[in-house]
Amino acid sequence: MDQPVVFINDSFVPAAAAALPVADLALQRGYGIFDFFKTVHNKPVFLDDHLRRFYQSADQMRLPVRQSPAALKAVIHELIQRNNIPDAGIRISCTGGITGDGYSITSPNLVITQQPLSPLAADAFEKGLTLLSYNHQRQLPEIKTIDYLMAIWLQPLVQQQQADDLLYFRHGLVTECPRANIFIVTEDDTVVTPGRNILKGITRKHVLQLAQDLYKVAERDVTLDELRTAKEVFICSTTKYILPVLQLDGAPVGNGRPGAATAKLNEVLRAYVHSLCH
Amino acid sequence: MDQPVVFINDSFVPAAAAALPVADLALQRGYGIFDFFKTVHNKPVFLDDHLRRFYQSADQMRLPVRQSPAALKAVIHELIQRNNIPDAGIRISCTGGITGDGYSITSPNLVITQQPLSPLAADAFEKGLTLLSYNHQRQLPEIKTIDYLMAIWLQPLVQQQQADDLLYFRHGLVTECPRANIFIVTEDDTVVTPGRNILKGITRKHVLQLAQDLYKVAERDVTLDELRTAKEVFICSTTKYILPVLQLDGAPVGNGRPGAATAKLNEVLRAYVHSLCH
Repeated sequence: MDQPVVFINDSFVPAAAAALPVADLALQRGYGIFDFFKTVHNKPVFLDDHLRRFYQSADQMRLPVRQSPAALKAVIHELIQRNNIPDAGIRISCTGGITGDGYSITSPNLVITQQPLSPLAADAFEKGLTLLSYNHQRQLPEIKTIDYLMAIWLQPLVQQQQADDLLYFRHGLVTECPRANIFIVTEDDTVVTPGRNILKGITRKHVLQLAQDLYKVAERDVTLDELRTAKEVFICSTTKYILPVLQLDGAPVGNGRPGAATAKLNEVLRAYVHSLCH
Repeated sequence: MDQPVVFINDSFVPAAAAALPVADLALQRGYGIFDFFKTVHNKPVFLDDHLRRFYQSADQMRLPVRQSPAALKAVIHELIQRNNIPDAGIRISCTGGITGDGYSITSPNLVITQQPLSPLAADAFEKGLTLLSYNHQRQLPEIKTIDYLMAIWLQPLVQQQQADDLLYFRHGLVTECPRANIFIVTEDDTVVTPGRNILKGITRKHVLQLAQDLYKVAERDVTLDELRTAKEVFICSTTKYILPVLQLDGAPVGNGRPGAATAKLNEVLRAYVHSLCH
């Protein structure tokens, strides 16, 4: 395969040449935002949602984006066409820009990269996930910043505990996984997901909408205890669709097998994405 | 002045060419560490302390540094000689490195930059600082990570409140400013500074050592209330030496003027640094 191109600020460059000055505020002070979406058969999935959130994140972090959403969309379509990586992840980043004093936002750098996305393992759904609960609240949770310090720092703990990922909680309330939203299904088949102190995922939004036709749904606080004893637990994300959570902290959750509502919602979500991309 | 050189991984490059790939984990996930020290008359101040902390930060973040401390020291001395910026700040950074999956640490990038350091305003000590208290605990506080998300995000609030900087507290206990340590002087002339949930500054260490010959000193919890009613309050940092804190949240602290112990310690610290660099 040819080397993919990367868009930086106002031009396409080969991926190997895609670099930012060491004086950028993202490198100096971890200050930047991004969004991430996938393409299926070269069609971007939920692009308008992701662009809306990207501009919201930028705005909340006082990072001006030079391009209009329409202009950025045209760039993304050109990137998709040039790279021709049908099933890919696309990341749009906006950094604090080169800073003289190492502290002030100047002129942000915009970077759009595309990478092939490996399909999920065929047994990913059946195998489900093992999560490890961890007492942590992300900073500025509703903004999609580049701050994944704790998630990456904790990877050895995750591996040592033979878990797949973390589940953050604070004051007894579960919030989210580092890169996925969490849901439970209650005994009366209500689909519930935390509604605050989280990043509101785009997949989460569509799962909630799709679930409304099938189940009662609620956005409300969920305690760690409620999650441990829920009928079903699942996560959703851009790359994973829906995956059942079958273990938490070494103990089974639900009946230890993927639940009926989890399977149904995954099927409906996949069919919906498929219908948008074919 | 010629353009300063920057050291990246194993070579010196002109500052304008100093860049890191957009796939670096620092840009992708805010994952990196650094240290920062100053030179006075081309002599690095407390270099061994800063190098020790740099390697500790790297180790705690699982970022291998290719160079030995001795090799890095030689590089720093060469940088100082090449750039000849007698009064400068030098920043050593170590990032997570280029990452394929956008999440895993690979081969870290090492960057050493040097920039001129403006002298403090002549009336900086007399004017003192106005701080704004803010309920926040930094993540991994004892590691010098690049995470300054909250500090930079809060700059408009700091300016709006006509403050100079933030003072973080959590559960009623003060911890630190984003880039400085905080001290109080009690009625009985004990010099007190918080001892946990902070970055242990190098200047802080030397202030504690120098203060021991002159006052009682203690590292212990300090409540926000105790600070508000302390006889004197001051901060210290690499670039600021010691500066009195004269206001907190719009109200005067101490008697609203630089205190005797604060002035004495600043004088002793400056004389000590001077003695090391002449």
